[in-house]
Amino acid sequence: MDSNLLSPASTARWLSNRDAYLIITHRRPDGDAIGCASALAQGLRESGKTAYVMFNPETTPRYLRFIEEYRAPESYVPENIIVVDTASYELFPKNCEAFIDAVSLCIDHHPSNTHYAKALCLDESRASCGEIIYEILLMLNGKITEKIAESLYVALSTDTGCFAYANTTENTLRVAAMLIESGAPHAKLNRMLFREKTRARIMIEGLIYTGLEFHFDGAVAISTVTRALIEEASATEDDIDDIASIPGSIMGVLVGITIRELTSELDCKVSVRTGPEVNSCDICARFGGGGHAMAAGFSLKESVSEIKEKLLGALGEYLP
Amino acid sequence: MDSNLLSPASTARWLSNRDAYLIITHRRPDGDAIGCASALAQGLRESGKTAYVMFNPETTPRYLRFIEEYRAPESYVPENIIVVDTASYELFPKNCEAFIDAVSLCIDHHPSNTHYAKALCLDESRASCGEIIYEILLMLNGKITEKIAESLYVALSTDTGCFAYANTTENTLRVAAMLIESGAPHAKLNRMLFREKTRARIMIEGLIYTGLEFHFDGAVAISTVTRALIEEASATEDDIDDIASIPGSIMGVLVGITIRELTSELDCKVSVRTGPEVNSCDICARFGGGGHAMAAGFSLKESVSEIKEKLLGALGEYLP
Repeated sequence: MDSNLLSPASTARWLSNRDAYLIITHRRPDGDAIGCASALAQGLRESGKTAYVMFNPETTPRYLRFIEEYRAPESYVPENIIVVDTASYELFPKNCEAFIDAVSLCIDHHPSNTHYAKALCLDESRASCGEIIYEILLMLNGKITEKIAESLYVALSTDTGCFAYANTTENTLRVAAMLIESGAPHAKLNRMLFREKTRARIMIEGLIYTGLEFHFDGAVAISTVTRALIEEASATEDDIDDIASIPGSIMGVLVGITIRELTSELDCKVSVRTGPEVNSCDICARFGGGGHAMAAGFSLKESVSEIKEKLLGALGEYLP
Repeated sequence: MDSNLLSPASTARWLSNRDAYLIITHRRPDGDAIGCASALAQGLRESGKTAYVMFNPETTPRYLRFIEEYRAPESYVPENIIVVDTASYELFPKNCEAFIDAVSLCIDHHPSNTHYAKALCLDESRASCGEIIYEILLMLNGKITEKIAESLYVALSTDTGCFAYANTTENTLRVAAMLIESGAPHAKLNRMLFREKTRARIMIEGLIYTGLEFHFDGAVAISTVTRALIEEASATEDDIDDIASIPGSIMGVLVGITIRELTSELDCKVSVRTGPEVNSCDICARFGGGGHAMAAGFSLKESVSEIKEKLLGALGEYLP
């Protein structure tokens, strides 16, 4: 399909000429998705429009549940469907699949956007979709309220790892500065999103860090997350989110491996993380798994020590 | 002593009316200290002045050694001593103590600055001294070179934990945006400064995490960094940079305390980090120290356990 391409200014005009909006974002939504959807709903309401979002209680992380405030009532009949931060309709959540052929406007920053919407405001140079929404809302309303600034700050900061990732640009920082000026409570948000860890998380990281094993002259790091270790730290699933990224974040490590015991000591999940020099997916395919080039995994009904032995026997082939 | 107070604009004029500068910063320099000193040396040279810095090879972290390029030759006889990012002359490095009574200008952002210099450009509202240096150099030269932008980005980003700490302001982000525009290689710097950890760093964090103590229902966390612990982790000074921020990063903690043994078991440095609810500086003042409202410190010639006892006896008064 060929979308009608709109600039942020034309998008603001487009929005002010219509009404009765329903805003959708991608499944398993992150901070940019939720921040954009809630900011846009608020901004449209500020300009006198009716606007709601589709809410997915099961897959929305606890810290992003503030979006529920804008949830569409069951009886709501929208006139215009807007999709934010979503590159293709394959990424639509289950409860939005009915709208696939009816998207009036898409606002996005993914280069992989498939132009599935009737109108499209796409800026691939932006680190976060929130930066585009900011520009549009500023033109739509002439100002950014404190609450909109808060939503957009969540969008910008989460998509850039609090401005530390390589995608951060001068525009990201400039918009973030203006959001703080508009009242975004950045100190509180940064603390919640990036700095604060639970006591159980700190304990589990401590146990993982002190138990790391290095092989192949430090090119391979192996982290072992046993059931006993999780019990020792009193950790929940929330506390162990993204622990597979730990061994790969160490200087000199090319392959970071996390072996985690699941339901028993003979039921392990192995996560492999690599830099661009090594292909994670190739390593995991050998053990019946798969994934991406820099993040892949596999499962085996064997013990941690058996898996470790197999991995160490095989890894030499994959190192540069 | 009563310093002559200068605005950034007057400071730029002051600098352009003099010459033969030597720039000093505090002992055990951090990114803000080194970033400011090297940016100022470069900026003064750009405007045709002679400017050098005092370099302390033993205490300057490896990743800040770029300052050596501006090192003063042995034979250098300065006419004007400038001190940056240093609140009092007690913080001067050993090789600068001779200059204590001869400081012509101090540029600083610490509220605890003792006005020890003849002239003082102080802005307590800035998260980093680098923001003040930026303002001065922009007025001195009309532009910021790529290399100055790199030094100042190090200053801003390290003093704010890559813009995540509560001290970050809209000005910090705005200046950071302009530094990126001027060519600061932020992606490379962020990776080096914030994302990659050494094996020794991972080990010392692991030992600290598993050894944390909690008091006052989890409102106070104490981390103890003994000489034995540093030895166990084979950690260098570089590896323990900013470890004082660890205990304050735990959910529910209002006061994060780090007690570190320095030259012996009876020579400890205590760092206190708090949120806005508690004043770090007040706590530290009681023990003869000082600093900022949310980050302060003191030193005592006592053992870890004696200090812990004193702190736990006193802290109740300061908690909300």
